[in-house]
Amino acid sequence: MRLIGETAWRETAGRVERELRSILEGLDCPGLIRESMGYSLLAGGKRIRPVVMIQLCELLGGREKDVMPLACAIEMIHSYSLIHDDLPAMDNDVLRRGKPTNHVVYGEAQAILAGDGLSNLAYEVILHALPEDPAVRTGFLKAAAYLSRCAGVCGMGGGQCMDLLAEKEPASLETLTELERLKTGALLRASLVCAAFTAGREDLISSLETYGDAIGLLFQIQDDLLDAVGDEALLGKSIGKDALAGKTTFVSALGIEGAAQAARDYRDRAEEALGSLPDAARSYLKDLTADLLERDH
Amino acid sequence: MRLIGETAWRETAGRVERELRSILEGLDCPGLIRESMGYSLLAGGKRIRPVVMIQLCELLGGREKDVMPLACAIEMIHSYSLIHDDLPAMDNDVLRRGKPTNHVVYGEAQAILAGDGLSNLAYEVILHALPEDPAVRTGFLKAAAYLSRCAGVCGMGGGQCMDLLAEKEPASLETLTELERLKTGALLRASLVCAAFTAGREDLISSLETYGDAIGLLFQIQDDLLDAVGDEALLGKSIGKDALAGKTTFVSALGIEGAAQAARDYRDRAEEALGSLPDAARSYLKDLTADLLERDH
Repeated sequence: MRLIGETAWRETAGRVERELRSILEGLDCPGLIRESMGYSLLAGGKRIRPVVMIQLCELLGGREKDVMPLACAIEMIHSYSLIHDDLPAMDNDVLRRGKPTNHVVYGEAQAILAGDGLSNLAYEVILHALPEDPAVRTGFLKAAAYLSRCAGVCGMGGGQCMDLLAEKEPASLETLTELERLKTGALLRASLVCAAFTAGREDLISSLETYGDAIGLLFQIQDDLLDAVGDEALLGKSIGKDALAGKTTFVSALGIEGAAQAARDYRDRAEEALGSLPDAARSYLKDLTADLLERDH
Repeated sequence: MRLIGETAWRETAGRVERELRSILEGLDCPGLIRESMGYSLLAGGKRIRPVVMIQLCELLGGREKDVMPLACAIEMIHSYSLIHDDLPAMDNDVLRRGKPTNHVVYGEAQAILAGDGLSNLAYEVILHALPEDPAVRTGFLKAAAYLSRCAGVCGMGGGQCMDLLAEKEPASLETLTELERLKTGALLRASLVCAAFTAGREDLISSLETYGDAIGLLFQIQDDLLDAVGDEALLGKSIGKDALAGKTTFVSALGIEGAAQAARDYRDRAEEALGSLPDAARSYLKDLTADLLERDH
């Protein structure tokens, strides 16, 4: 898959990676917890949320250095949610990005603490990096408040709760859509909205929320398609688990062709929402939609 | 046990309880996660951290309404840490405050999410309740930053990690002291320091840190004594587990008399640290020390 301007993407992702590493190295904490947090946080991945947050913020007139703490925070939140999702009591996954999952390496108790540590560290980083400039600080704090809502039980956490319930009783397509809007969509949406708040462009937030909801669902439908027909080696994780567990997915509800069509419908809805954005930001997010739709891992 | 002015304590604790309940009720989230978070968060308890934070803040010239979000946040952090500590992979406790623990009632997966939800909600509450007044807001944000450090892997989370390690290899008295300074002490210290920051009394923080470290250890020694000789019914939790697990405690390291003496030594150290405080605050914290030393549950 391409991700927009590939070189620029890799460079921004590299700066995020270095910042995450530097934050972990700067912590005055027991070595084991630093190591176990780093094992998952620094395991690579496409860094979609932080890179989009930073690049969109710049396209809207903001500065990378102002938004970087929020970008690191959202990646920490994403990473902690994966560690806890993989636990034996949750999805019981042993493979993630081609590596053994956190609890396989460090044990369940330590993996719970590593997740807790990353969740808290997200806010520790934010609260210790408030921008000096009063106007930027105000936008930054609004972004942080928005992120916290999206990460919590009204966002991602609520989606995870619904996901557990859907294991016991298969969800309707409507419930599945709401579940995924929260579980996957909330953080993607937060990455866009945090960019706008930090850049002082509150006028764009409603459009970005609509766009974010649409690409969140598009992203998840693509995930379900890859889980049904993708390449396990390329994906770096076990596939076919949802089908085996009898859980509703967009593929089980709509069939492969129906799911692919739904993804294209969400692409159209996403593009419609971009009308009010400045040209450069609109073009950037249009490319992002295409890349998410065409991804193979 | 007394806790300082008993009626005033109960009244403040009651207002914290109502605020916590109101926050949970106001969340637009799945009913099950609200219920499972509330099961632990609203299970009573002495509310030591939020009550001390509020009452000390007022004695230092601050206002309850300004510090209340931080007080709720610290109780959420304390509550989430208990839910995760009780999990089968951690301490595997089935009883807490006389009730079945969270995972016994809701299952392990849901208990992990309830803990995650409360941890995040702490910051969600803080970030959505920034005081209007610029000076108060600055102190409030410094308090929030301090709290986040104390809750994370450089504080409570690091202490929990050391505690896991101490299960494999018995800790020395020195390691145990550092472990407990983080695991139990960090949040107690945060409750004092957040009060001072919010009241705009940064000049008192160093004294309060010294006092907080001392009462954190005093509190934990008392816990170990109660675990060795306390009344299970009064405590509302299983006792004698640490001794059975072969873990170092202040009682195993120092004996019952030695531990009681160490607690009195920390009391003296705590009182010495109070010299620079205004009279009312000094007298309040002196009473707090005595109450913690004499508690039987």
